[in-house]
Amino acid sequence: MADLIRFGVSISSDLLARFDKVIEEKGYVNRSEAIRDLIRNYIVESDWESDEETVGVVTIIYNHHIRELTNKLADLQHTYNTMINSALHVHLDHDHCLEAIVVKGRSSEIKKFADKLIGIKGVKHGQLARTVSGKDI
Amino acid sequence: MADLIRFGVSISSDLLARFDKVIEEKGYVNRSEAIRDLIRNYIVESDWESDEETVGVVTIIYNHHIRELTNKLADLQHTYNTMINSALHVHLDHDHCLEAIVVKGRSSEIKKFADKLIGIKGVKHGQLARTVSGKDI
Amino acid sequence: MADLIRFGVSISSDLLARFDKVIEEKGYVNRSEAIRDLIRNYIVESDWESDEETVGVVTIIYNHHIRELTNKLADLQHTYNTMINSALHVHLDHDHCLEAIVVKGRSSEIKKFADKLIGIKGVKHGQLARTVSGKDI
Amino acid sequence: MADLIRFGVSISSDLLARFDKVIEEKGYVNRSEAIRDLIRNYIVESDWESDEETVGVVTIIYNHHIRELTNKLADLQHTYNTMINSALHVHLDHDHCLEAIVVKGRSSEIKKFADKLIGIKGVKHGQLARTVSGKDI
Repeated sequence: MADLIRFGVSISSDLLARFDKVIEEKGYVNRSEAIRDLIRNYIVESDWESDEETVGVVTIIYNHHIRELTNKLADLQHTYNTMINSALHVHLDHDHCLEAIVVKGRSSEIKKFADKLIGIKGVKHGQLARTVSGKDI
Repeated sequence: MADLIRFGVSISSDLLARFDKVIEEKGYVNRSEAIRDLIRNYIVESDWESDEETVGVVTIIYNHHIRELTNKLADLQHTYNTMINSALHVHLDHDHCLEAIVVKGRSSEIKKFADKLIGIKGVKHGQLARTVSGKDI
Repeated sequence: MADLIRFGVSISSDLLARFDKVIEEKGYVNRSEAIRDLIRNYIVESDWESDEETVGVVTIIYNHHIRELTNKLADLQHTYNTMINSALHVHLDHDHCLEAIVVKGRSSEIKKFADKLIGIKGVKHGQLARTVSGKDI
Repeated sequence: MADLIRFGVSISSDLLARFDKVIEEKGYVNRSEAIRDLIRNYIVESDWESDEETVGVVTIIYNHHIRELTNKLADLQHTYNTMINSALHVHLDHDHCLEAIVVKGRSSEIKKFADKLIGIKGVKHGQLARTVSGKDI
């Protein structure tokens, strides 16, 4: 773990008062933690833009009664098996499943995988959450 | 399952040609499926705006060596236990974990839970993926 | 103008080094300015979520040859005249115009106006940029 | 202007009923117009991702009393003069100005210009609205 250092930010007292109010509403217990989160979000966005090594979670919702759908989903995941870490499967109701798939790789590759998965007929909705492995932030 | 019906869309041939090109790149095998996905995304966004019953996946990245962090994460999840369906835990490297937590509830409640979770000291990055249960789309 | 004060942020040296690299690429000349921008973005998002008094810029693209479109756009803008500050009109090519309309008001009202404007037949594309008046950030 | 054609979309009656309800709330008068808007949004996003020729509106908020700020803003705009079409200037209050700058160019160039403009010390908030010229959608 890296050494902790401290740097100063000059700011108008009014702006800082507003910031403190918003972060309190969001549940932050201290200002440094909130600033570090803003910094980390900013770096994660930059990593995704620059096609760095990142981590994504692809969430899909589908009706498991659709013929051949489960096979197609499994086939695509096997094609991308070197990128896929694991998946969580949830039975939302009698018909519908949610699958949250954790993927590691360059951001462009993760986006391509997510697009293909979401484009499969029978997948009703999909979302890609963008994050990173944590060791560089 | 609802009856399938068919409706017509009038459109300029140029615009349709461009659409067909983009959806092919994204991996769609047919135009109706792409249109249905656009429609479903639009409805999901509207459900999240209108504070309807929705489904979310909160992804967090944290260093599990941080003292008390695992307990704090567990405590908060137990406070919200009626909303939480399940969670996937991934060991990203020696220090870092990813947790993807599936939550059902009104969108405002899910956002509040995600804000609190991400605001905990030691959680390095967090993302909320917005979806729905599938039965209404 | 409010008094300038200074507060300290403790952070790992690695994370700070990464942040400095990203903000340099984005063109920031100093770290405090970048932090203040992150803080202001965060407050602006919170103001838009909480339905505060905000400022928006609605950008629309349309074909001015479409019958009655110019009248419809003018009518809607007159209905919302108390919110609208001014508008910039650009002739993008022989057929197409861009209009950027500056609006002040509660965020929910600005969103409603933007939805209506973008929903008018003949408006090809629309975007709402979310900002605030500047005096509170 | 291209020929109008018509294509059919098969969809469950429940999903279509929900879509009709949402687009009515948003102010759409007919379903084809709403579908065309979804298609156009999808193409515009794809154009911005693929670094095509696009149109952007950069909105900035700043305090015009800040020394040298007006000069710096003008200098940067002159450096990018071949991309900039025009700008709207609004006096929001005694201290603050809004400027909405219309830019044409490849999406990566527009992003770079927006980053630099927003990074200038004294610019309090900035937003980039992404659109296109209209002739291809």
